Amino acid sequence: MTLPPLGLICGSGSLPLEVAEGAHAAGRDVFLIALRGSADKGIERYPHAWLGFGEIGKLLKLLEKAGVKQLVLVGGVQRPALRDIRLDMTGLISMPEIRRLMSAGDDHLLSGVTGFLAARGYEVIGAHEAAPGLTASEGLLGARDATAADATSVAAGLAVLAALGPHDVGQAAVAIGRRIVAVEAAEGTDMMLRRVARLVEKGRIKREGRGGVLVKAPKPGQNLRVDLPAIGPRTIELAAAAGLTGVAVAAGGVLLAERARIIELADSSGLFLAGVPQAAFGAP
Amino acid sequence: MTLPPLGLICGSGSLPLEVAEGAHAAGRDVFLIALRGSADKGIERYPHAWLGFGEIGKLLKLLEKAGVKQLVLVGGVQRPALRDIRLDMTGLISMPEIRRLMSAGDDHLLSGVTGFLAARGYEVIGAHEAAPGLTASEGLLGARDATAADATSVAAGLAVLAALGPHDVGQAAVAIGRRIVAVEAAEGTDMMLRRVARLVEKGRIKREGRGGVLVKAPKPGQNLRVDLPAIGPRTIELAAAAGLTGVAVAAGGVLLAERARIIELADSSGLFLAGVPQAAFGAP
Repeated sequence: MTLPPLGLICGSGSLPLEVAEGAHAAGRDVFLIALRGSADKGIERYPHAWLGFGEIGKLLKLLEKAGVKQLVLVGGVQRPALRDIRLDMTGLISMPEIRRLMSAGDDHLLSGVTGFLAARGYEVIGAHEAAPGLTASEGLLGARDATAADATSVAAGLAVLAALGPHDVGQAAVAIGRRIVAVEAAEGTDMMLRRVARLVEKGRIKREGRGGVLVKAPKPGQNLRVDLPAIGPRTIELAAAAGLTGVAVAAGGVLLAERARIIELADSSGLFLAGVPQAAFGAP
Repeated sequence: MTLPPLGLICGSGSLPLEVAEGAHAAGRDVFLIALRGSADKGIERYPHAWLGFGEIGKLLKLLEKAGVKQLVLVGGVQRPALRDIRLDMTGLISMPEIRRLMSAGDDHLLSGVTGFLAARGYEVIGAHEAAPGLTASEGLLGARDATAADATSVAAGLAVLAALGPHDVGQAAVAIGRRIVAVEAAEGTDMMLRRVARLVEKGRIKREGRGGVLVKAPKPGQNLRVDLPAIGPRTIELAAAAGLTGVAVAAGGVLLAERARIIELADSSGLFLAGVPQAAFGAP
């Protein structure tokens, strides 16, 4: 028995296409809903339909017609103002529900959309479940191996992320040896890495030559179905610019956007890239 | 029996004078060693001597002559390059020891100086011990009271600092309600507060009006004798600029530089300022 096609609601970036390719490579048909103003043209190589933000009725009809039962929400979405959304009839009927969703925080918006679809019989799964090859696997992913000094940095980073787990903080930290030089909270990984580069430049972080590791993992209890941490080529570039010697991510829990390019960049910049068992991050 | 005069080795900023005043107000004579190129002229109102960085022999002679037994190291020091230090004879004799000190990390430099003085019969005490009135006392320090929402932010900040305690991370965090939006590591409190202001401006931190609290405390095991966390008027200005509603610090563990000005600024910006028992920070 073949599975029904996997539906992808596609926002911006290269990720929707990567997930579609991953699922397709795993032998599954896909049907892509491209969000107008967000999704990339590239997704048109698969069966697809373009849709505006408020076309809820049309969305449900398209999914039914395509026989979709499982959905993935993937890619970036610029949250539109409520007044800019043109709701179709079903959208208008669902208006109170939509208004509640739109006024919630980002995390709640995503869980809300999941709930909205679940109430209509659709199961939302994570990109990591639809295309497991997209997340980091365990072990070394690139050519460079980690040194003993790197291992010390990784251990320090893992320890601090585990300690932060129960608190609603970040998903990443930079350790240089036993010292944690940066912890990510609202600023995001890129801004944190830029800060480390600046602090090194200013002499506020003292270090002999290169050194230090970016460690990144989901928060315990993070809803990976709608909010999967990711690194991309830019993460590697910024880590290299900060003089780090490697990047360690939770295996199975952090998405590698443009995986081949990430590994190529890590190799050419002399950074190790490793997938670490999630248990090491204090995850259940 | 009166105590022998307290020696202060004075770096830059207003703190050396404040500590001298605090100790003097508590009935203790003081003798100030003003580091040339760093210390403020204002300290000259107390018995003092100016000294270059390498004049180790002269330092020891001055301390002996003044009858000093206890010392405080206070104020900022720009670490000079080893080649710029003109060592006197005692300095030259102690050269290997000094070279070891100068190549150590900041934390080790300070502990090293303490050790150097201890080996010569001097006890180094903390500014908070010499002038207890300079650190935050318990309770509200300004006019504004904390709201229930503020209390939630304080609790979240305390919890995350307690969790970070065993790791060598920062001394401060910003919480908005239950959410930790920034954790200080190598960047320092000022830079962290500027980041929060920028993230709010960019809409990366969502908040209804003003809200959020800066929480600051020593790390467990931090050597307060040479490395006492501090806030100053600028901290309050930056907290206000980030739209926070208050600042909570560990009572007895965080120095208030220019205390009167800090409280005045907190009051005029509508921020509460509170000293929280150190046990709440997970300190022993």
